Amino acid sequence: MIDYPGFDFEITARDAKSGARTGRLTTPHGTIETPNYIFCGTKATVKNLSPAQLHEARTDIILSNTYHLMLQPGADLVEKMGGLHKFMNWDGPLLTDSGGFQVFSLGEGTMANEIKGRSGKGHDNRNLLEITEQGCVFRSYLDGRTINLTPEGAMDIQRKLGADLLMQFDECTPYHVDKDYTARSMEMSMRWGDRCLAHFAKTHDGRQAVYGIVQGGVYKDLRRYSADYTADRPFFGTAIGGCLGGTEEEMADVVQGSVPFIHPTRPVHFLGIGRIRDVFRFVRMGIDTFDCVIPTRLARHGTVFMRGAKGETINLKNAQYRDDPSPLDETLGLASSATFSKAYIHHLLKANENLASQILAQHNVATINRLMREVREAIPKGGLDALEKVWLGL
Amino acid sequence: MIDYPGFDFEITARDAKSGARTGRLTTPHGTIETPNYIFCGTKATVKNLSPAQLHEARTDIILSNTYHLMLQPGADLVEKMGGLHKFMNWDGPLLTDSGGFQVFSLGEGTMANEIKGRSGKGHDNRNLLEITEQGCVFRSYLDGRTINLTPEGAMDIQRKLGADLLMQFDECTPYHVDKDYTARSMEMSMRWGDRCLAHFAKTHDGRQAVYGIVQGGVYKDLRRYSADYTADRPFFGTAIGGCLGGTEEEMADVVQGSVPFIHPTRPVHFLGIGRIRDVFRFVRMGIDTFDCVIPTRLARHGTVFMRGAKGETINLKNAQYRDDPSPLDETLGLASSATFSKAYIHHLLKANENLASQILAQHNVATINRLMREVREAIPKGGLDALEKVWLGL
Repeated sequence: MIDYPGFDFEITARDAKSGARTGRLTTPHGTIETPNYIFCGTKATVKNLSPAQLHEARTDIILSNTYHLMLQPGADLVEKMGGLHKFMNWDGPLLTDSGGFQVFSLGEGTMANEIKGRSGKGHDNRNLLEITEQGCVFRSYLDGRTINLTPEGAMDIQRKLGADLLMQFDECTPYHVDKDYTARSMEMSMRWGDRCLAHFAKTHDGRQAVYGIVQGGVYKDLRRYSADYTADRPFFGTAIGGCLGGTEEEMADVVQGSVPFIHPTRPVHFLGIGRIRDVFRFVRMGIDTFDCVIPTRLARHGTVFMRGAKGETINLKNAQYRDDPSPLDETLGLASSATFSKAYIHHLLKANENLASQILAQHNVATINRLMREVREAIPKGGLDALEKVWLGL
Repeated sequence: MIDYPGFDFEITARDAKSGARTGRLTTPHGTIETPNYIFCGTKATVKNLSPAQLHEARTDIILSNTYHLMLQPGADLVEKMGGLHKFMNWDGPLLTDSGGFQVFSLGEGTMANEIKGRSGKGHDNRNLLEITEQGCVFRSYLDGRTINLTPEGAMDIQRKLGADLLMQFDECTPYHVDKDYTARSMEMSMRWGDRCLAHFAKTHDGRQAVYGIVQGGVYKDLRRYSADYTADRPFFGTAIGGCLGGTEEEMADVVQGSVPFIHPTRPVHFLGIGRIRDVFRFVRMGIDTFDCVIPTRLARHGTVFMRGAKGETINLKNAQYRDDPSPLDETLGLASSATFSKAYIHHLLKANENLASQILAQHNVATINRLMREVREAIPKGGLDALEKVWLGL
């Protein structure tokens, strides 16, 4: 048994027609309403945005990546600087992952296609040297040094980083591995989860809480087995990870097959998924929090989420915006989205000016935060279907 | 005679020991106190900073480059979008140059070493195809198309852009050309200046005012001749341009030799110069406004201006800042300079995160604006020498 006295998750309303629910997730750094979206601050910064700009965009919670931070600037340095909250000047709830995803996906953590089921076969990562029961050995993409990462080590690093919400260390199984590999990997991840909890308990001071991760690939019986395991252990929350299949339908099928077995009153986080249509689909299955690099990554390529746009987004690089005097969105309640014309942003993108990334990243974050607010309002009223039509321009 | 009814320059105080003066420069977009610093928004954006961030850093006036804007997005587009103020959302005083400097220096406008006297010989610009009495022909660095730029054309473009303060078109003579070339070039620039004024007068609507540019290279008699010319013409202000020599001393000598002949009651702008020590040196010679890309360019390389630092700047990439918990400057009155630790900024620079450029650019702009405020306070009190010691850590 592990107590999480500074933490709480309260379910406040349920949708009559689906598994959607609203809740209130409390951490030592504040309480957030759910469903909510956790924006990626990979290297201790949400790309192109300061904490002040994140607040302006009404952001409630962000995450940072253990893998990147352990390599640079290093967990000891972050601890010495007072922990990640203080280091990056984010005073709200903060999550760190375990480092596993990037170790098992790809060196830079930017090519996770394979694990998401979009291509490849097996761990296609030249920097990953060894996976054993003990943990894994990989090569730093920064300086080539060899690094040993174990469940215990992942917890120590996350302890030093000091985020509110932590993830257990797991093997993130890739797409196209067979059921036998997936089952053995999942079972090892369960043993790793137990080691994480045991190690976490030794230094538990009430300031952090751990999520277990449901693995099992595309195999429903394995997902159920893994969900049962996490529900049975003293994790604070449950995350859904690993390969979910190659198509949207397969992904939905896997999640739908997992959630009935997930602990019913713990917060459920969906790792690495977060387009607007995903939010609508998976909120209905009971997902409480999402995270994805998409809002800031799309921004760097000139693409913005737009409430009501067919296909969710528009691309400001398109020639049609060259002389468009209209602002991005006057209804968003964000100064820069109401101020700069599409023509100006088009120009900044053509001129490779960083101000474009700043404007568009803040717009995307603010738009997703608006989406989540409206989703939270819609759930108790049974209004998800109507809201989805508005957002997706259906 | 050309009247500039919406414009004014009033000298409000003079230093007893030098040529330094304070003044008030009025444009249709507001009045600024001088001496002041005009920050470079080359492509209609001060790199990495929004107008809101510029205001937060207490910026009074910025400039944008005709050369870059005529190539992209084009003056017609900017005019169609309501002019440069509206296009880039800058509501304060705004200056445009004539395009000449970049045409005569180098294609991208980022390698002006040669004109500043730091290297090279003659116009070392592969994109410059021809200079004649009529104007010049150059090749666009963006798409290779051939462009004809004349004094009249430069005024038309600046009219469309709609800045408050315009520059005459001139040939910016490079370093290491002989006196004969410099004299002939300067005389042509004078004729170009007359053509600029004549063309400007045809469509003058009171919203814009033109500066003449003093050329003449390192030759004092030519500088005097050119200064006399600008003083004799109905320019609103005087700019000092062209090659000023290869050393700081030579540059100072050339400016010192020019200013006695510059119109005494017009505002004097020094083109492209602006380190802290330059500000102290040239304010004493009567310079009212400076411009330079240095504040934002240094920021992109991790270097910041620091009041009292030996050599003006520190470089946050240096290993000594790796674990330095102190903020950049708590006395600056700028939130981000008081908030983020040097250790965090060091990390962002190592991780190539753009947030560093944003933080450091705003810090540099705010620091230079503070410098200019303190210079303006010092001048009437005879306090320039003492202030210089403080700023340069002497």
